[in-house]
Amino acid sequence: MSTVVQGLEGVVAAETRLSQVDGQAGELTIGGFAVEELAPQASFEEVLHLLWHDALPTAGQLAELRKKLLPQRTLPQATLEVIKAAAAALVHPMDALRMGCAILSLGDPDPDDNGVEANLERAIKLAASFPTIVATFWRLRDGQEPIPPRDDLGHAANYLYMLRGEEPDPAAARALETYLNTVVDHGLNASTFTARVIVSTQSDMISAVTGAIGALKGPLHGGAPGPALDMVFEIGQPEKAEAYLKDKLARGERIMGFGHRVYKVRDPRAEVLSQAADVLFEQAGDRSLYELAQAVEKIAVRVLEEHKPGRNLQTNVEFYTALLLHGVGLESDIFSSTFALGRVGGWTAHVLEQQRANRLIRPSSAYTGAFNRRWVALERR
Amino acid sequence: MSTVVQGLEGVVAAETRLSQVDGQAGELTIGGFAVEELAPQASFEEVLHLLWHDALPTAGQLAELRKKLLPQRTLPQATLEVIKAAAAALVHPMDALRMGCAILSLGDPDPDDNGVEANLERAIKLAASFPTIVATFWRLRDGQEPIPPRDDLGHAANYLYMLRGEEPDPAAARALETYLNTVVDHGLNASTFTARVIVSTQSDMISAVTGAIGALKGPLHGGAPGPALDMVFEIGQPEKAEAYLKDKLARGERIMGFGHRVYKVRDPRAEVLSQAADVLFEQAGDRSLYELAQAVEKIAVRVLEEHKPGRNLQTNVEFYTALLLHGVGLESDIFSSTFALGRVGGWTAHVLEQQRANRLIRPSSAYTGAFNRRWVALERR
Repeated sequence: MSTVVQGLEGVVAAETRLSQVDGQAGELTIGGFAVEELAPQASFEEVLHLLWHDALPTAGQLAELRKKLLPQRTLPQATLEVIKAAAAALVHPMDALRMGCAILSLGDPDPDDNGVEANLERAIKLAASFPTIVATFWRLRDGQEPIPPRDDLGHAANYLYMLRGEEPDPAAARALETYLNTVVDHGLNASTFTARVIVSTQSDMISAVTGAIGALKGPLHGGAPGPALDMVFEIGQPEKAEAYLKDKLARGERIMGFGHRVYKVRDPRAEVLSQAADVLFEQAGDRSLYELAQAVEKIAVRVLEEHKPGRNLQTNVEFYTALLLHGVGLESDIFSSTFALGRVGGWTAHVLEQQRANRLIRPSSAYTGAFNRRWVALERR
Repeated sequence: MSTVVQGLEGVVAAETRLSQVDGQAGELTIGGFAVEELAPQASFEEVLHLLWHDALPTAGQLAELRKKLLPQRTLPQATLEVIKAAAAALVHPMDALRMGCAILSLGDPDPDDNGVEANLERAIKLAASFPTIVATFWRLRDGQEPIPPRDDLGHAANYLYMLRGEEPDPAAARALETYLNTVVDHGLNASTFTARVIVSTQSDMISAVTGAIGALKGPLHGGAPGPALDMVFEIGQPEKAEAYLKDKLARGERIMGFGHRVYKVRDPRAEVLSQAADVLFEQAGDRSLYELAQAVEKIAVRVLEEHKPGRNLQTNVEFYTALLLHGVGLESDIFSSTFALGRVGGWTAHVLEQQRANRLIRPSSAYTGAFNRRWVALERR
């Protein structure tokens, strides 16, 4: 009997041209670009094209993609009804997204066509409809009417517009776009892996992405950027950070926003998001929260090293995600869903990649149960 | 860089007390029982209790479980609306089940409670509502009114009743029950693995099972028992089998119902289902289809061995699944959904097990893409 590989740590389960996470060097490559090179410069639509086609789009290709995305921003009536029910029931925002995504195969022009072209259309539908699902749920849940998408706004700006009904500040839209690009793909994380396992049975892209949303919901994956920010607010002043953090560790609690399975140095996404946040808060004319966060980060890394020497618990993507999305004007319980708006680019690209060279993903298990139990009739139990 | 383990074949990804698949010996153990011992004798409710609690229920426990299952057979209004939309759009039956399942978290009494007791209640809700979702979709799609569940019927019998509106023959109900028990769990198959990956992020059971449905839909997993039966019908007479099968192989086509990643001998489930089908057809007074299937099986195994010597392509579970479910009176495009009615017992039990000793399932990938691409402004591409 072979040994269990706990959490599949270190097992290489797929080849991908989409991204590489170098956890030792702290480097993330997305579609051939260092994340620092790509994320702050590209529009999200350009990154979608990059992942789906392995090249930045020409002006003509980008116009074509935008033309296809626009009509898919409007939700089918059945999806809208489900979002209404979810909002009325006050479900978790990620549950609402899962429900909305699960029914997107309604109205598929040819559900049996599992070819590349049909799946590219589905990828466009998924990427375009996610912001509307999230924003619609958000507003309905808060008792406000949904706001229809605006065709003259890009992907990121339109999302902010649908949330608030006013055209966003360009700096906020740019910061959000940088965030979406930064988190669009990240190796075989649990949600991406889920999507690949599902589609490896020759199932469909909507099923795969619906499953991926479920995985991203979990606090060990995308589900916990909120608490990192809550902590910064609770600390309030840099000089209170050390005592706060030490108390927390003494109580056996986890400090959110630090530590990652793969990165043993600072997550390169933290740097990209930190810089984007810096610009954003600078333009808004108040850098105090940003400076507090920076101070908390420095102290937290030091306190963690003292508390668990050699464990190398470094700042992860959650810490500056929370700060950036807060700066953009989002509330913390929409952070995970906003993560999904970015990551759906990676999920769909991984599904296309898995389909190109598929093999059923089916590991083994080690049995720890009983053997040779004999049937006993109910009346004699 | 480590080597990719294609399809994770041979990698042991989890420990489980739920089932063991011994592919060399052709033995399947479910909850400590050989499948031949358990499946034909137990009710599906007893098997649910066995997987969830690692013991057959006492009479009192079984009565308690049945009492909890009954009210959950009735679908919430929102689920019913989604099923109606799915039926009107003629989606794939597995897509309808995915949609119905995805929205079952509406009405969850305490969504934030991820403890064992709350998840056992969710497991009951999932197991109880699946037959109603499938039967309701089925009837609506065919332009018929749904039939409400009947509290005096067991799980399997009630499913057949909701499909057809008449109390099923006890032999048919028993055969279906044997089928559900036989397929309830099977190691780390792709859908079960999907559920465990999702919940390993500390996500929730509904998300995990929704993802699992997506995986089961694929033809390489649960999605293809229909074609095995179509083939038997096309052959029509035993003496035509050899020429038909050789022609098929000569055209490079696959013979459905044979071959399995894990089993190198006859799938033990094939034997259990074959015996159950034998009894069923015998009681119905016409064994001709059963005898034809047996003859086709024998010839197919021989022809496959001649065609691909040493590959050991043996009868898998699909072959007799198709025969049995046809004998029970089901049409072939409901076979996959019926598979899910059984497997949901395993999925929910694996979720409970993963939660008891969780570690995030997050493998690695090998990067095959470019490096160090430099940003080029749109107008210069």
